[in-house]
Amino acid sequence: MIKQISSAQNPAVKRLLQLQEKSRSRKKEGVFIVEGIREISLAIKGGFEIDEIYFCAELFNEGQLSALLKNITYHPEITELSADVYNKIAYRGSTEGLVGVVKSKNTSLENLQLDSKTPLILVAEAPEKPGNIGALLRTADAANLDAVLIANPKTDLFNPNIIRSSVGCVFSNKIATGTTSEIIKFLKNKNIGIYAAALQASKNYSAIDLTAPCAIVVGTEATGLSKEWLENSNQNIIIPMHGEIDSMNVSVAAGIIIFEAKRQRGF
Amino acid sequence: MIKQISSAQNPAVKRLLQLQEKSRSRKKEGVFIVEGIREISLAIKGGFEIDEIYFCAELFNEGQLSALLKNITYHPEITELSADVYNKIAYRGSTEGLVGVVKSKNTSLENLQLDSKTPLILVAEAPEKPGNIGALLRTADAANLDAVLIANPKTDLFNPNIIRSSVGCVFSNKIATGTTSEIIKFLKNKNIGIYAAALQASKNYSAIDLTAPCAIVVGTEATGLSKEWLENSNQNIIIPMHGEIDSMNVSVAAGIIIFEAKRQRGF
Repeated sequence: MIKQISSAQNPAVKRLLQLQEKSRSRKKEGVFIVEGIREISLAIKGGFEIDEIYFCAELFNEGQLSALLKNITYHPEITELSADVYNKIAYRGSTEGLVGVVKSKNTSLENLQLDSKTPLILVAEAPEKPGNIGALLRTADAANLDAVLIANPKTDLFNPNIIRSSVGCVFSNKIATGTTSEIIKFLKNKNIGIYAAALQASKNYSAIDLTAPCAIVVGTEATGLSKEWLENSNQNIIIPMHGEIDSMNVSVAAGIIIFEAKRQRGF
Repeated sequence: MIKQISSAQNPAVKRLLQLQEKSRSRKKEGVFIVEGIREISLAIKGGFEIDEIYFCAELFNEGQLSALLKNITYHPEITELSADVYNKIAYRGSTEGLVGVVKSKNTSLENLQLDSKTPLILVAEAPEKPGNIGALLRTADAANLDAVLIANPKTDLFNPNIIRSSVGCVFSNKIATGTTSEIIKFLKNKNIGIYAAALQASKNYSAIDLTAPCAIVVGTEATGLSKEWLENSNQNIIIPMHGEIDSMNVSVAAGIIIFEAKRQRGF
């Protein structure tokens, strides 16, 4: 049975807007908003559970909806929106006519399964800009990393700007979050080498053997990594820079080190 | 002699705002706006000529101004702004109290001098997002590239978002612009190898000898490189990806290939 909403005054509309805008609302309900056909497909493929689907019949028809949901065995609640209501909700101003309410995943470290015997992991400490987080997740997906760990997260992973800028890689990566101390303990327990990228390090990243189990750790552009990482790493590493300004984007720096590991591992 | 402006109705205010907002105004006058002490210092260091300085005495004093201008031999026109007027002009909402009108440089290929016998060059075709252009310029600075060439530019290099996101690397790099055809001709004339990054290429970027004179060419994230680059390259190269989504940020991809060249060249 398909519900219908044609008034922007409907309380459901206010709720959806709050889920988009407010991390607190997402946390409280344990869900987040995904907009767009491709993104919702990727969330399904990534094992996320779709609680509710909202579609605008002028843009997206029931046939497309059946195709989208054909591989899932449960039944999300489905609501049809008038064009007016849809336009009010569509965060990206997209014209695809589809918004989903998706259940958050538990991102605790205890839930993280590593399948590889020589895992390659990216750790980002306190990343702030959604654009950087998105770019990190895209690189992690392309490199098929075993996990991405966010230490001391500053933003909620399922905020719409991260979903958008990750082009769906927030669904394809194995992501866990924790405090810096918890992640260090996790890595040490599993004998995963910790390589902390630091501007004041002396060891060239490409002179390190990155073929063993290892975690590449990057900090913020403004303040770098915390002392705790630098003191608990197996080795602090540097990308040698020879410019005037020597300031690299954090996702570029991470990409360079990750793909040096991929190169050493024969891709 | 220091002029003073204390009315936001002064026509000079409108002009400064237009120079910030409108590429057309910048082109017409051959100047652009730089905001902030660090940025103006970097522009001076990069050989840009400062035509005019606007400062807010509540935030920036004449002593600081003398220090800033001590290494230049000409005399920019200096104007003091009231706090109200400054706040109207300050694009970044910065509190440094300093805005400069800077002369654009000629970025034509004929003006580009390459000093190295084995230049390493980045070419970006039609990059659009200021954030990506900024990140590319930061990587180019850190790698001390011999030049950055923008083919078929979509945006004017001196727009405030590029200046900001490049953290001043728009001033430290040697940058030239031209059509794709002009740049290809330029590179071929100088016997600089053309390595075009393409998702459909078969040759792994790390299997290429990047120690000879070479240009690494990247396209847009949406459409990649034009046929003209792919057909005129010495070799099309790929970064092998093994994820679900396989979509990397263009500045990350460029950084990976550039630093593979740096690695091969012994940094």
